[in-house]
Amino acid sequence: MALIVQKYGGTSVGSPERIMAVAERVQRWHAQGHDIVVVVSAMSGETNRLIGLAKAITPDPDPRELDQMVSTGEQVTIALLAMALQQRGLGAKSLTGAQVAIRTDSAFTKARIESIDDTLMRAELAKRNVIIVAGFQGVDSEGNITTLGRGGSDTTGVALAAALKADECQIYTDVDGVYTTDPRVVPQARRMDKITFEEMLEMASLGSKVLQIRSVEFAGKYQVPLRVLSSFGEGEGTLITTESEVTMEQPVISGIAFNRDEAKLTVRGVPDLPGIAFRILGPIGDANIEVDMIVQNVAADNTTDFTFTVARGEMKKALGVLETVAKDIGAREVVTDDKICKVSMVGVGMRSHAGVASKMFGVLAKENINIQMISTSEIKISVVVEEKYLELAVRALHTAFGLDAPAKA
Amino acid sequence: MALIVQKYGGTSVGSPERIMAVAERVQRWHAQGHDIVVVVSAMSGETNRLIGLAKAITPDPDPRELDQMVSTGEQVTIALLAMALQQRGLGAKSLTGAQVAIRTDSAFTKARIESIDDTLMRAELAKRNVIIVAGFQGVDSEGNITTLGRGGSDTTGVALAAALKADECQIYTDVDGVYTTDPRVVPQARRMDKITFEEMLEMASLGSKVLQIRSVEFAGKYQVPLRVLSSFGEGEGTLITTESEVTMEQPVISGIAFNRDEAKLTVRGVPDLPGIAFRILGPIGDANIEVDMIVQNVAADNTTDFTFTVARGEMKKALGVLETVAKDIGAREVVTDDKICKVSMVGVGMRSHAGVASKMFGVLAKENINIQMISTSEIKISVVVEEKYLELAVRALHTAFGLDAPAKA
Repeated sequence: MALIVQKYGGTSVGSPERIMAVAERVQRWHAQGHDIVVVVSAMSGETNRLIGLAKAITPDPDPRELDQMVSTGEQVTIALLAMALQQRGLGAKSLTGAQVAIRTDSAFTKARIESIDDTLMRAELAKRNVIIVAGFQGVDSEGNITTLGRGGSDTTGVALAAALKADECQIYTDVDGVYTTDPRVVPQARRMDKITFEEMLEMASLGSKVLQIRSVEFAGKYQVPLRVLSSFGEGEGTLITTESEVTMEQPVISGIAFNRDEAKLTVRGVPDLPGIAFRILGPIGDANIEVDMIVQNVAADNTTDFTFTVARGEMKKALGVLETVAKDIGAREVVTDDKICKVSMVGVGMRSHAGVASKMFGVLAKENINIQMISTSEIKISVVVEEKYLELAVRALHTAFGLDAPAKA
Repeated sequence: MALIVQKYGGTSVGSPERIMAVAERVQRWHAQGHDIVVVVSAMSGETNRLIGLAKAITPDPDPRELDQMVSTGEQVTIALLAMALQQRGLGAKSLTGAQVAIRTDSAFTKARIESIDDTLMRAELAKRNVIIVAGFQGVDSEGNITTLGRGGSDTTGVALAAALKADECQIYTDVDGVYTTDPRVVPQARRMDKITFEEMLEMASLGSKVLQIRSVEFAGKYQVPLRVLSSFGEGEGTLITTESEVTMEQPVISGIAFNRDEAKLTVRGVPDLPGIAFRILGPIGDANIEVDMIVQNVAADNTTDFTFTVARGEMKKALGVLETVAKDIGAREVVTDDKICKVSMVGVGMRSHAGVASKMFGVLAKENINIQMISTSEIKISVVVEEKYLELAVRALHTAFGLDAPAKA
């Protein structure tokens, strides 16, 4: 029988009734003979309620004290779930991050896990007890409570699975798996049975917000099979695992991600000199603005056009920085465009299949969609197009690359 | 300068605004050069909210899990108070019971403190930081979180004061001190400046619910001067201390306590044989009914009347037990009366002053109040009278024993 780590998010444990439903699900897995470690988040709304109390006292609460306070949200949920399991006749024990102990550095509100002591958990598992661990929290070397930052419960789940060498880490959420693309845009989107860690990272960072990126990185690093499932329905969900586990019958493209939260800035007529990219992007980085895609073209007159994208909310700030920079470097002008979007095709199959990019461009051309920027990596091709074409582009690509679900009978 | 432990209850920290008011008060003490350790309860209503969540899941929650959950209430308050102090520019650090560490036995929901490690607190005090400790909680030898039972924050305050050899433990509450009697009954009731631990214990157990009895016992045992003050107003409050600290000018009687929650049961015509008291009270004890006063009189016909009092809500249950017992021992009848009350005069002065009892009886006789039962201890005389005479009896005694406050100008 297997050792399984299950993680339930705030919505899944949002009320006593839902906690009892989680207990029922845990019991079903336990009854199959599996050893179960459960990680839970705070009940939905609780973390915000606590932060609201702190903000009523000070606009800028001390991070140590914030963690001391916010960590109570998960502590309540673990106890309630333990009670619900005991009510069903199971042996169950709740553990805070400190009790486990999940040792972190002292970077309050965004701590990183350094080590996990599995002694206590192993002893309880040996007694066939279900262990319920508070997500999102740990303890530093001085006994201070730390938190891993919002959404960090996924990371706790994966880290526990890695420490215990669990057979699988199951992330229960309000969707029933990872889809080839957003079903709200493409009704024919299919739930993927399997996807590789690398693909999932590309999908997640591109806007398919199912899992915390950091937990996927962590799972990939420690090769912990990760499964996304619905905490409300049944079904196998989507398994995120190593490439060797993903069958060879996988299509070339696994999924299509997109992101509307993009804005484009172009510095025109930049003298084509060494170091010019740094002189443009250095000040942008100094202003704490994250840059996404970057494209540079050389023009005929020995000047160049330098284009990059940022989150839409950062465009004005970036423009302010660029206007000064443009003067300094003798560029002609800065133009912006916030009516754009990014569409990305992701798939490990690209590595072994040529012609994916040209097929993609062909599909878009056939729909009369002009490509403004292109960026490629080993398993991803991203294009920037006008925002109004987003749905059309995604649907056309989804169909053309054979991702549509078969029509239902 | 002094080392002072201050304890604030749930009402005093019931909202962000009130927590900020507590911070202001703490800062004032700190600015006078004192070292301050603050103990706080959960925000009022929070403990009940949490228990409500547990009860929604199971009628009979596991005590360990209940403590794991309920202890979060104080954990939130300590962090909020630390933030409020930091906002005022003070160095402040919150500590849970486990972080201190306040070591207890493993009797969840009613744990007893076994030891307190003062190392961390001393180190923080040396830096002139204010320490805020979660009341009502500790940690057992296996790292499980325990609670001391409801109201246990007073005990935490006294225990910390004892461990740190503090100069004073201040209990902030919603009254401004301990009164000679309930001001709602006697408007002339006076706030006492000082009272001994023993007197306070008699006053508390008799219904003047200002402090947890257990914390007073604890303070007496470790000779920790205890002061009750208002968290909303100013003033010196009442100092509870050793007899040698209470001046000799103290009146004979310190205060008058009373209790309406009494009912009387009399077994009439009991054969006057050895062991009869045990045969009556044994079954009462077995039924978990607590007995307060006991009186036995021998009658002329070699039978006796056996009378005792119980909490009013227990009278019916006690009667059920007694009716069986009465048959067994051949008693004539059982009569009950729940229209009674107990009035008690308390004062260490009784030890050195004769005639207190007879003066008390004289005062009551003058008011035509019939005394139904009498019970005395070294520093207390209690009588049972008809409930309708309660106010009259208390007022008459209060005046006769010189407790009335001087009329205000």
